[in-house]
Amino acid sequence: MTSDDKSTRHTARMVRKKAVIDAAIEQANQEKGLLLVLTGNGKGKSSSAFGMMARALGYGMKVGVAQFIKGRSDTGEEAFFRGQANVEWHVLGEGFTWNTQDRERDTKTAQAGWAIAQRMLRDPSIQLVILDELTYTIKYGYLDLTQILADIAARPAMQHVVVTGRGAPVALTELADTVSEIMDIKHAWRAGIKAQPGIDL
Amino acid sequence: MTSDDKSTRHTARMVRKKAVIDAAIEQANQEKGLLLVLTGNGKGKSSSAFGMMARALGYGMKVGVAQFIKGRSDTGEEAFFRGQANVEWHVLGEGFTWNTQDRERDTKTAQAGWAIAQRMLRDPSIQLVILDELTYTIKYGYLDLTQILADIAARPAMQHVVVTGRGAPVALTELADTVSEIMDIKHAWRAGIKAQPGIDL
Repeated sequence: MTSDDKSTRHTARMVRKKAVIDAAIEQANQEKGLLLVLTGNGKGKSSSAFGMMARALGYGMKVGVAQFIKGRSDTGEEAFFRGQANVEWHVLGEGFTWNTQDRERDTKTAQAGWAIAQRMLRDPSIQLVILDELTYTIKYGYLDLTQILADIAARPAMQHVVVTGRGAPVALTELADTVSEIMDIKHAWRAGIKAQPGIDL
Repeated sequence: MTSDDKSTRHTARMVRKKAVIDAAIEQANQEKGLLLVLTGNGKGKSSSAFGMMARALGYGMKVGVAQFIKGRSDTGEEAFFRGQANVEWHVLGEGFTWNTQDRERDTKTAQAGWAIAQRMLRDPSIQLVILDELTYTIKYGYLDLTQILADIAARPAMQHVVVTGRGAPVALTELADTVSEIMDIKHAWRAGIKAQPGIDL
């Protein structure tokens, strides 16, 4: 095949592709507040939520963040976003539960955190709510899934919500508009490399 | 089982879990510049890269971004990050190839883009380089994979690189330290919802 043939075939392929994409764009014409769930064991769930946050801020949208379980205040994302215009930032945990090892206390912390999340989920001025690492509070029974689903479902019509964390419950993914499962194909951690500022925290 | 039993079992489980995590943290003690690849068909690859960018900026690191193929300048991420301190931002495409349908032009555009990426991959003052949607330039043969791998491998020892895009080539994932494959479990697009500012763009 000559270079010209290649180029002709490429053009024909791209013309067909463009037609398919154009038709799909034509059809996808609804707008609504989305519920996105980022789950799975791979790296990239929380960082994806924070990338969407950057996008939303780029459009001048107001964003509320509730970080569950991660009870630390020295992450790069917090240092970067907290205090910026249009950002409301809450760290609601007291460290991973295997550091506290106190079920009663973790439950109370999670429930106090959910009250803050609820308030954001009722506020139409907040256009994106990020519930980072929420799934662990459900897994360990600190929060009631039925209540969470009801509060998310009852939010303002144009508000987007992003939930991150491993092992998202089926009822949550059923309610969601978009679900990505992030598979851990390879992780530097297993090669003995420690968590890197700017990448992992 | 009483509530006290539950609590005791929970504590015991968390103590064991903490021991496992502590041992793993102890063992993961190397530091190096990481190559991360975010691939797969699901939503969240580019946004994850931009979340890591926010983390890196939170640590005062300098970040260079090269967006391949996406030849548009109205994304939320660009509006948000471009012009911020410590950010170098390049949009290197001229729109998806099915919009241009000109193989020669796309190849030239991609190669001019790679020259800019090369410059960042040789600059030790840039601590994180994001090569967004790079994989498409490889898939369509616009760029040479061998050259890309050589340039990434030769980068400064502490520089992190994040590559995003569907269908990452095996040789790239072999070179990578961390690989996440983002599976498309569900996408709002298929329910007729159009791409949402702040989420998809």
